[in-house]
Amino acid sequence: MIAVLKGGVSDEQRENLCRWFESIGLSCHVSKGEFHTIIGLIGDVSKVDIEMLESLSIIERVTRISDPFKKANRKFHEEPTIVDVGGRKFGGGNFQIIAGPCSVESEEQIITVARAVKASGATLLRGGAFKPRTSPYAFQGLHGEGIKLLLEAKKDTGLPVVSEIMNINDLDLFADVDVLQVGARNMQNFDLLKELGHCDKPILLKRGLANTLKELLMSAEYIMAGGNENVMLCERGIRTFETYTRNTLDVSAVPVLHEYTHLPVIVDPSHSTGYARYVSSTALASTAAGADGLIIEVHNDPAHALCDGAQSLTPEQFDGLAKKIARVREAIA
Amino acid sequence: MIAVLKGGVSDEQRENLCRWFESIGLSCHVSKGEFHTIIGLIGDVSKVDIEMLESLSIIERVTRISDPFKKANRKFHEEPTIVDVGGRKFGGGNFQIIAGPCSVESEEQIITVARAVKASGATLLRGGAFKPRTSPYAFQGLHGEGIKLLLEAKKDTGLPVVSEIMNINDLDLFADVDVLQVGARNMQNFDLLKELGHCDKPILLKRGLANTLKELLMSAEYIMAGGNENVMLCERGIRTFETYTRNTLDVSAVPVLHEYTHLPVIVDPSHSTGYARYVSSTALASTAAGADGLIIEVHNDPAHALCDGAQSLTPEQFDGLAKKIARVREAIA
Amino acid sequence: MIAVLKGGVSDEQRENLCRWFESIGLSCHVSKGEFHTIIGLIGDVSKVDIEMLESLSIIERVTRISDPFKKANRKFHEEPTIVDVGGRKFGGGNFQIIAGPCSVESEEQIITVARAVKASGATLLRGGAFKPRTSPYAFQGLHGEGIKLLLEAKKDTGLPVVSEIMNINDLDLFADVDVLQVGARNMQNFDLLKELGHCDKPILLKRGLANTLKELLMSAEYIMAGGNENVMLCERGIRTFETYTRNTLDVSAVPVLHEYTHLPVIVDPSHSTGYARYVSSTALASTAAGADGLIIEVHNDPAHALCDGAQSLTPEQFDGLAKKIARVREAIA
Amino acid sequence: MIAVLKGGVSDEQRENLCRWFESIGLSCHVSKGEFHTIIGLIGDVSKVDIEMLESLSIIERVTRISDPFKKANRKFHEEPTIVDVGGRKFGGGNFQIIAGPCSVESEEQIITVARAVKASGATLLRGGAFKPRTSPYAFQGLHGEGIKLLLEAKKDTGLPVVSEIMNINDLDLFADVDVLQVGARNMQNFDLLKELGHCDKPILLKRGLANTLKELLMSAEYIMAGGNENVMLCERGIRTFETYTRNTLDVSAVPVLHEYTHLPVIVDPSHSTGYARYVSSTALASTAAGADGLIIEVHNDPAHALCDGAQSLTPEQFDGLAKKIARVREAIA
Repeated sequence: MIAVLKGGVSDEQRENLCRWFESIGLSCHVSKGEFHTIIGLIGDVSKVDIEMLESLSIIERVTRISDPFKKANRKFHEEPTIVDVGGRKFGGGNFQIIAGPCSVESEEQIITVARAVKASGATLLRGGAFKPRTSPYAFQGLHGEGIKLLLEAKKDTGLPVVSEIMNINDLDLFADVDVLQVGARNMQNFDLLKELGHCDKPILLKRGLANTLKELLMSAEYIMAGGNENVMLCERGIRTFETYTRNTLDVSAVPVLHEYTHLPVIVDPSHSTGYARYVSSTALASTAAGADGLIIEVHNDPAHALCDGAQSLTPEQFDGLAKKIARVREAIA
Repeated sequence: MIAVLKGGVSDEQRENLCRWFESIGLSCHVSKGEFHTIIGLIGDVSKVDIEMLESLSIIERVTRISDPFKKANRKFHEEPTIVDVGGRKFGGGNFQIIAGPCSVESEEQIITVARAVKASGATLLRGGAFKPRTSPYAFQGLHGEGIKLLLEAKKDTGLPVVSEIMNINDLDLFADVDVLQVGARNMQNFDLLKELGHCDKPILLKRGLANTLKELLMSAEYIMAGGNENVMLCERGIRTFETYTRNTLDVSAVPVLHEYTHLPVIVDPSHSTGYARYVSSTALASTAAGADGLIIEVHNDPAHALCDGAQSLTPEQFDGLAKKIARVREAIA
Repeated sequence: MIAVLKGGVSDEQRENLCRWFESIGLSCHVSKGEFHTIIGLIGDVSKVDIEMLESLSIIERVTRISDPFKKANRKFHEEPTIVDVGGRKFGGGNFQIIAGPCSVESEEQIITVARAVKASGATLLRGGAFKPRTSPYAFQGLHGEGIKLLLEAKKDTGLPVVSEIMNINDLDLFADVDVLQVGARNMQNFDLLKELGHCDKPILLKRGLANTLKELLMSAEYIMAGGNENVMLCERGIRTFETYTRNTLDVSAVPVLHEYTHLPVIVDPSHSTGYARYVSSTALASTAAGADGLIIEVHNDPAHALCDGAQSLTPEQFDGLAKKIARVREAIA
Repeated sequence: MIAVLKGGVSDEQRENLCRWFESIGLSCHVSKGEFHTIIGLIGDVSKVDIEMLESLSIIERVTRISDPFKKANRKFHEEPTIVDVGGRKFGGGNFQIIAGPCSVESEEQIITVARAVKASGATLLRGGAFKPRTSPYAFQGLHGEGIKLLLEAKKDTGLPVVSEIMNINDLDLFADVDVLQVGARNMQNFDLLKELGHCDKPILLKRGLANTLKELLMSAEYIMAGGNENVMLCERGIRTFETYTRNTLDVSAVPVLHEYTHLPVIVDPSHSTGYARYVSSTALASTAAGADGLIIEVHNDPAHALCDGAQSLTPEQFDGLAKKIARVREAIA
């Protein structure tokens, strides 16, 4: 870490600053230039609060040379991490499609969808039982009953299941769920992350709507610091000024994350744009960008055919898409 | 709520859609134009998922006429809500300054700061015991011990205290804290909001870094729907592309919120920009914009004088600022 | 266009409003509901200033049903526009790669790069002579001399050339340039757009850093309204809060633009992220998303090999990428 | 400027890099650490392209110590610049209110408004003759005729006038206009800025919708580098995700710009939020934040009273606001 002092800082001020750095275990390497003095900090700077430093009146700028995340960092772990969910592998050249409905609604619904997506090539099943909703008056999921139905579908099809957990007090309910999903709104619910660091299940960590990739990696670090290194990162669209789509898919997150971390990178094309009619294009784009997996909403509801236009695909649309995804995978191999 | 259908939608499709609306308790008023058909929906539309509707392939656009929040809505509650914290009133022309350190660090620190800010005119004391930190390796607060020290300062000065709660399982620790703060990162931690709806303390709800004011009002609605209507809203800077400040203070949030809701509106100028040197200007600006209160970081740490430049003011700076705030309050009266 | 009136609006106010609408040539269809009155406006609403209307104190909300752009609108022109540049076709299933250096620097440089990219499969040559630079002290391009060198390379290789125009007074210099590029910073330089509407060359219109896709279409409309319908739209990354990349590539712009307009859609993966090491992934992603072409920076500078890491690829890297692009084109066919 | 090299960079690569720096006139000061090598660059770094450097594969990070703007920089010009427009002074403790209609529409309109705002305390008159409009079909101003009418109002009231220039070819028409305004969309129209650098009139430079304050200062530098140092900066709202306001007023731009530059800082509260009902709060906030002036839209149109709700105030509303502004000025003195 390098701290550049402002012009006009006195020797005494500089020495005070260095003494403080030394008091927290760092050593200082001072280099005086014509206009500025630079302090190089050596030691474990991960505990230094860069924002606090930068706001000191005697400091011009602070540059962190090393990344603040360690366990998630590719520099210290060059080989890609392969997350294995009941034999389905993500990362290191392995690619899986997670598919299923937004919410688990009924036994018939979840089993029908599960069978359909399995037949088209999905290798894991998703389904929400606890739904984070902006409005307190909106449907919030079937909760424990939803998990039970999801597990029925797992039993029926053999597909491992992924579902979102919002509250650490619900952990017992998820005992047989294969992958625990942390939703975008909880990406910085640090108490939840810490708790998940102590469990032994793979975690699918979604990027927050307005969080940087560095913050996503820091949240992964929270889980990994607790001992659970089976973390998959998920890009799901960020908040921008654009209004033709619900969110903006940051497809470059795929190569960027692959550079900075060894963890697998998944993309959720359904939430990224919010419209089913853009899911195919963005799913193919994410595949071509090198994603290690996709998580796609598929809905089968003949009685309410009008929902077909939502952000979920029909099983037929999903089937066509899955074939194209396979071809794009080959094209970039 | 108005749904505009796309051109070319068949009568059958339209009728199916209306039947579905009717099945969820709404009545439809269809009006056919030259190019488009418009369906006016009458009834309790608060449960309708506008995003789902908008993504239907037969729908061009959906316009919500009524706001999705009810209890927080000024339309149904014209009089401003006055939140009373041990005699200190916020809203309806009443104005308070909450001041204190970012984190509670020691008994001496919190009591020294508490006495100083009280002498300068602060009427409530803030102090963090549970700190949400981006890095798992950073100092996370003194937890229960911090709350204890904060309560010592309350006893010493008589100032009611405000502190952030991150985890519903910690609620007991906050039994004697006067105002529970929900931090920006937890603004959409819906399980936490629901739980706070069942307690009887005033809540200081901070706007998320990338949340709209409508979403802030929906989160207030979560708390109010549970029965707790003592909610104060807090603007604390939003995430933008600008880099000279940590966040961008959205000062127009003050008049906008006063238009849409009857709840008091507080501004946090310390976190809004992230630098102490901008706190005075933005505190005065927020006061002039009509805020019902301010929450300001004040730090007293003679041993580490170098921290003076951070986002906290010294007691002396705070004293000067408090005098100017009072003058601006008079100027706009 | 639908205007929803606020509750409590008097009959007189409503009638005044309707009279005003009628004075500008629209007819009103009033529909009174229990809580709100809705006015449907029929006629040519393209001249109505929706922002002005929305800010009237008696109006709750205004919804535009029809898009404000006409000539660029796919609704009125279902067939994709095919832009033909000296036999190289963009759109309607046709795909081209435009490649070349950021700036034209010397005859040797531009001819070497031109021959290399042609050999690898590029079908048009790009090269900047007028460079928009944030700093007045930075190199601003070779201007007329740069155009001359670019035309030498055109003569040598037969590749049609693309170059950016910043000032309408420079138009004569571009007489033999095949495609005029409007840069992101000039996307709303309306006087430039109007002038380009009167010339007969294809225009490559880049999206502004913080412009919505609707605004991009409105800027295309400026050019088309003047008579020049040979417009290609170019996504080149937008400004967000993310800092690991210079800009954020909005890859969903490809399917969204294809839905709203018949114009070809090009992607610039070089500027989208700002780093050469992310160009391949994002170029492949854009191709998989269905782009009608790519514009890629390629730099050949053996003397300053250190620049290889910038946002330009080497000819060798470009060659490998071009092969993969062709395979992805086949995979999604 | 400091360049931090990546770990693993060879001596040869480092020496090549240093040779290149030296070839552009900089001297290098190399400091090898345990993990990283740091190169301090001494000399005129204003011509160094930091983005190019940062993207080199051997470079970890680049930190600019000195700002890229010189003439606008407060470090080299501590005293505030006072811009004098016919005796009305901006900056250095001087404060002016510029008021008038969005567009000049008729002689009667502009003279009526001019007299009214003068009576209420405005000291300069604004009025648009060339209007940048998103749609080519919208009213674009009265052009030369509008300037003529504005000058009539100047003659009638003695108020100096401010109007927007969009095209350098129109400069002659503005011969008697006192202040030339550069609109947000043209903030990076560098050819226009350069030309204005050669004229001798004060320039009101508006911040672009999505431009950082540093970019605003660089655009001021373009004008000043040409010799015209009479530049006033104008904050007018930036583009964010918030939708209850048209733009988000960045009120902290006032203290930030005062720190970095000696140029006067104006705020436009009318465009900042887009709604007349928020103009008073934000005008007072900007005044309290320390702005050197305000530019406010005032509209007098008895025949179309319905426009009162737009982003323009009535003369009566303006009169009340001007009184409060004066009181806030005193409160912060």
